[in-house]
Amino acid sequence: MSGNSFGKLFTVTTFGESHGPAIGCVIDGCPPGLALSEADIQPELDRRRPGTSRHVTQRQEPDAVQILSGVYEGVTTGTPIALLIRNEDQRSKDYGNIADSFRPGHADYTYWHKYGVRDPRGGGRSSARLTAPVVGAAAIAKKWLKEQYGTEFAGCMRQLGDIDVPFQDFAHVPSNPFFAATADADLIERMETYMDELRKAGDSIGARIDVVARNVPVGLGQPIYDKLDADIAYAMMGINAVKGVEIGAGFASVAQRGSEHGDELTLQGFGSNHAGGVLGGISTGQDITVSIAIKPTSSIRTPRQSIDRAGQPVTVETFGRHDPCVGIRATPIAEAMLALVLIDHALMHRAQCGDVHVATPDIARLGK
Amino acid sequence: MSGNSFGKLFTVTTFGESHGPAIGCVIDGCPPGLALSEADIQPELDRRRPGTSRHVTQRQEPDAVQILSGVYEGVTTGTPIALLIRNEDQRSKDYGNIADSFRPGHADYTYWHKYGVRDPRGGGRSSARLTAPVVGAAAIAKKWLKEQYGTEFAGCMRQLGDIDVPFQDFAHVPSNPFFAATADADLIERMETYMDELRKAGDSIGARIDVVARNVPVGLGQPIYDKLDADIAYAMMGINAVKGVEIGAGFASVAQRGSEHGDELTLQGFGSNHAGGVLGGISTGQDITVSIAIKPTSSIRTPRQSIDRAGQPVTVETFGRHDPCVGIRATPIAEAMLALVLIDHALMHRAQCGDVHVATPDIARLGK
Amino acid sequence: MSGNSFGKLFTVTTFGESHGPAIGCVIDGCPPGLALSEADIQPELDRRRPGTSRHVTQRQEPDAVQILSGVYEGVTTGTPIALLIRNEDQRSKDYGNIADSFRPGHADYTYWHKYGVRDPRGGGRSSARLTAPVVGAAAIAKKWLKEQYGTEFAGCMRQLGDIDVPFQDFAHVPSNPFFAATADADLIERMETYMDELRKAGDSIGARIDVVARNVPVGLGQPIYDKLDADIAYAMMGINAVKGVEIGAGFASVAQRGSEHGDELTLQGFGSNHAGGVLGGISTGQDITVSIAIKPTSSIRTPRQSIDRAGQPVTVETFGRHDPCVGIRATPIAEAMLALVLIDHALMHRAQCGDVHVATPDIARLGK
Amino acid sequence: MSGNSFGKLFTVTTFGESHGPAIGCVIDGCPPGLALSEADIQPELDRRRPGTSRHVTQRQEPDAVQILSGVYEGVTTGTPIALLIRNEDQRSKDYGNIADSFRPGHADYTYWHKYGVRDPRGGGRSSARLTAPVVGAAAIAKKWLKEQYGTEFAGCMRQLGDIDVPFQDFAHVPSNPFFAATADADLIERMETYMDELRKAGDSIGARIDVVARNVPVGLGQPIYDKLDADIAYAMMGINAVKGVEIGAGFASVAQRGSEHGDELTLQGFGSNHAGGVLGGISTGQDITVSIAIKPTSSIRTPRQSIDRAGQPVTVETFGRHDPCVGIRATPIAEAMLALVLIDHALMHRAQCGDVHVATPDIARLGK
Repeated sequence: MSGNSFGKLFTVTTFGESHGPAIGCVIDGCPPGLALSEADIQPELDRRRPGTSRHVTQRQEPDAVQILSGVYEGVTTGTPIALLIRNEDQRSKDYGNIADSFRPGHADYTYWHKYGVRDPRGGGRSSARLTAPVVGAAAIAKKWLKEQYGTEFAGCMRQLGDIDVPFQDFAHVPSNPFFAATADADLIERMETYMDELRKAGDSIGARIDVVARNVPVGLGQPIYDKLDADIAYAMMGINAVKGVEIGAGFASVAQRGSEHGDELTLQGFGSNHAGGVLGGISTGQDITVSIAIKPTSSIRTPRQSIDRAGQPVTVETFGRHDPCVGIRATPIAEAMLALVLIDHALMHRAQCGDVHVATPDIARLGK
Repeated sequence: MSGNSFGKLFTVTTFGESHGPAIGCVIDGCPPGLALSEADIQPELDRRRPGTSRHVTQRQEPDAVQILSGVYEGVTTGTPIALLIRNEDQRSKDYGNIADSFRPGHADYTYWHKYGVRDPRGGGRSSARLTAPVVGAAAIAKKWLKEQYGTEFAGCMRQLGDIDVPFQDFAHVPSNPFFAATADADLIERMETYMDELRKAGDSIGARIDVVARNVPVGLGQPIYDKLDADIAYAMMGINAVKGVEIGAGFASVAQRGSEHGDELTLQGFGSNHAGGVLGGISTGQDITVSIAIKPTSSIRTPRQSIDRAGQPVTVETFGRHDPCVGIRATPIAEAMLALVLIDHALMHRAQCGDVHVATPDIARLGK
Repeated sequence: MSGNSFGKLFTVTTFGESHGPAIGCVIDGCPPGLALSEADIQPELDRRRPGTSRHVTQRQEPDAVQILSGVYEGVTTGTPIALLIRNEDQRSKDYGNIADSFRPGHADYTYWHKYGVRDPRGGGRSSARLTAPVVGAAAIAKKWLKEQYGTEFAGCMRQLGDIDVPFQDFAHVPSNPFFAATADADLIERMETYMDELRKAGDSIGARIDVVARNVPVGLGQPIYDKLDADIAYAMMGINAVKGVEIGAGFASVAQRGSEHGDELTLQGFGSNHAGGVLGGISTGQDITVSIAIKPTSSIRTPRQSIDRAGQPVTVETFGRHDPCVGIRATPIAEAMLALVLIDHALMHRAQCGDVHVATPDIARLGK
Repeated sequence: MSGNSFGKLFTVTTFGESHGPAIGCVIDGCPPGLALSEADIQPELDRRRPGTSRHVTQRQEPDAVQILSGVYEGVTTGTPIALLIRNEDQRSKDYGNIADSFRPGHADYTYWHKYGVRDPRGGGRSSARLTAPVVGAAAIAKKWLKEQYGTEFAGCMRQLGDIDVPFQDFAHVPSNPFFAATADADLIERMETYMDELRKAGDSIGARIDVVARNVPVGLGQPIYDKLDADIAYAMMGINAVKGVEIGAGFASVAQRGSEHGDELTLQGFGSNHAGGVLGGISTGQDITVSIAIKPTSSIRTPRQSIDRAGQPVTVETFGRHDPCVGIRATPIAEAMLALVLIDHALMHRAQCGDVHVATPDIARLGK
């Protein structure tokens, strides 16, 4: 209710601040009987981890996860799973100069107005560091969905500032420094140069990320409000710095005619996927396709006009360690949110309608 | 939990199908002491009502609302307010030919797969007719927000298919047949011709709608998940046919630098509003600005390939009465959803932090 | 959230006041595919209906229920089921004299303090009349539970004031004027005389009711908080006038030793049922046994000291039509609440653990 | 939703098992600005702590609490507060012999049937040890309620097996080995002898506990379902081993007449408190009075008949360290649950109706 829990049946409640002793989460509702250990979770955390290239924040965090509960003899018991991640590399002194002033475009201003008190160290609760426990929780969701339905997730960067990044193959993502689905060396060099110049300029930039879920059962989603796409939009817009969300054709559907947009069905499956895998708020069995817009980081070295807590004008320059493009590390986070939405709807569907239908390949196979 | 309630503290639970005896809702959590009668609600329903021009469905529904509970001697009592709207103009026979086949792009397919049973008359529960009770409930929310904080809502069409519709003034919206904020007679004629040709062609088209809330208190929204913008995205993506949502700069923020995107603060207020009135998921006191993409109607007369319930190929042509552009009547609906999100967060903020702060004009005045 | 919805997955939201135009509810989460018509619901409403003997309120209400949504061609569709019951026999003028003063023991006082406004006609929202929609909703829950698991409900009065009412057989309940499980003519006459004297004296009396659910699946209930017995206690204590709830041995367990209380298991099933069918908050497969204490009606003709809204002392005598023992009609209501708790937990269990286990007779058969 | 969270606006989500590495909770919704450190929480944990006398379990746990988040510079920030308590004194080998059989009266049986897997060490998740994090969370709730409204909590044992324990004064509770409100040395000696004999016999016994909240604001509670007394019943019945709950006169109200039960109001306040501080589900401003029945511990050395996981008959004797009367340490737990209910309703009331009314002494002063 107070905004720190995600999901209704697979519920993840997170806690912690960027520079407190620890961050973590409690997962309530994980089905019993799933084989689980830290080794299932750590790789996903490692994908999101800071400090892995010169294009992201240089904060060094091992992000080593510990399971505190809910697993007995290597199997989930159906009771809450608590994950704990210690914060290791705090440099709180970096934030002394911003404790009293508000960074343009930052949650500083709103947290202070809302609560009358805030933890300024590294953004406190509003830090993107708080996506780590979510990525950990989603690793469990992904494992369960994979075992139950064969559901798989993938994502990639599709735009970096004004550089379009064509999609080649998801296989390129793990070795690409920007989570882009490309092996185009020229393009990668252009992106690296672009980021190097930005960093030198003390500025930041936005990005667009696509995520996809494959082998999604038909029939997930609720009518009217808790539609699958509505919950996906909620999940994605809740990621730090996201300003836009599209499902399927997204804003391009504005200029489409009905005779073009509506995906025809044949005995070989759907003829297209403008719907992005959702019709009437319920999954069709096609791939779920989502696109998100991520704004540029607000913590930049470029001097900006602002005010302080006393209401006086100030010039703000933010030093410390910040991602010049938070979009770079956003791909595993967006996948994680999508996985959390899907497991929640899968469990809800099971409550209401019994076993989840998995679409037969001849009907629901995406021919995108 | 099962997807037919919206909001946590001002909770609207709707019921009904397009061609059942009645539709309506129960509003739980309306604060006591608000003067209220049907006359406060009916005008908003009339804005959304079908049959008002040749560009929308010709179904004739008075949409007369009756308050069944929760009001005593003209004042809300704090107990549930039930709204009832009778369906008057059903022509269920129009739907006989689609009861067994699936319209491309329609919820037909997913409802049948999810529930194993569906009401095909007029889309049943998935009909956009079900936005009527929500618009009714939101009329109450709007009245309360206006009285408490002076909050006001406005919206308009900004794109019809490939026609861009420039914003002139919200004052033009009530007399514009498309809810566009323009009095440009040439443009209006062009839009009317465009719609007439579509209708003749038996096809449909998408639209983009902008909505704005003004005089929003600072501090509404929850950290991490129930962010104000996340809940707005959820609300908007849940409207029938919506495929994309933007807050503030939206997808344009991808190509912005941090030094451009972050809205500077001065003693005269914010210097811009790329944030769309939300930072870190919490309202800044600036205007909340939202943009949504609405796909073309799936019920069209153009023949399309599909399958039927037996899995056999069929050609589907949909007759009956349908909006050729559901976006035309979407503006009051989008305003309604925004109002429901804001009242919910206003009540939540009051729970957590006591009285809501209203931003002083010199700090939070939008200089958009 | 605001207290007018019951249940998480089979959610009943009620609306209405004792003397408004109508009362009713919306049921969200009923599984699809259940055959349903008004004829399944009306008999349960008739059991609870007022005006059926001289020992209950003389208000004449047919309590005819209408299904407004959620059923198509005689089968539930999985979408919300709205039930509407018109109020027919209001005599609001009876309440003129109590609009400004507070009846001792009545919700008058607290509603006025909470909301600053209240509907005094017949107790408004706090009237026991509002149990009618719940009984209607529970008729649907009972039907589903019976079809799925063979679950059945029964209840009876066990104490009327200081008269103990021994249990003979549930078969006697339908023809007993007090919902007592006895055919003892002397006892019934004694109860009738007792009630006649009370009525003449202008006073009221309490009662104790037992309810039982049989053929309950093993494994329903959540650990720690949403225990099955915790939710039953919540459901029962929420019934108008209830002041105490026991599960199984209840308060008698205080003086029991562990070697007596713990129900032994044999190959023929449990040897006793002190647990009342719940261990660790989860159903054992034994009968669920519940006992509730109902206080005497607060609306009595006997003059009592009180204050009025201006804070002045007054003497209150309540005329109008009131049950001298609200416990008499409480049995179908208590059964209804138990059914609503069980269906909610059955659906929740299905979400978490897949199909519900039904206890094999040789292990879980109650040997009470 | 999955049963491990308590409260809607002040939400406590617990995790952990009796013999895992740690137990703890996340508190979401604590208002910002409350001065808070471990020193505010530890004393309540120490009251509940095992190993403090020969009459309780000899497990030695320091129960040292650590705050991991939500507090900055000694003040709550409005973000989640995580509490961590390490388990220090596990002796899991004590449980080897019960891993495959079911103790009569224990959650062993139901957890195994529900989940198909269970952690047998010390009862796993069903252990009363899991009340520790709740007591910690409630310490925060108590502090806030005390500062806002002066609300205070007290509780005491009123019955130990068949020994009635008269109430003298709450001042005696801290030094009484049974949390009884008495300084009667003869009675205390009788209770100690009673417990010594039980322990020698390898048996256990039940208890009755009373708890009271004083200086409760008028108007807390929701109509119809989330009544204050319904939520109290839910909270109390959810405590391990509780089988009965009474509010105010409880089961005694069955034999009361309306002219006796209804508490008269005078200019000096209520003339009695049979209501237990709640009318129509909403607080009156009188003391909230609650009584609970606690069953005897199921883990006893006395041999009992049962079955094992293979369905074979076995004789079960439970060794290891167990409270022979779990009621002895239940008083701080019952107070904690009552505090959690009240803070939740106080925040909810603030959401709906603005500032909470504190009853003026001349009207709501309890004359119990």
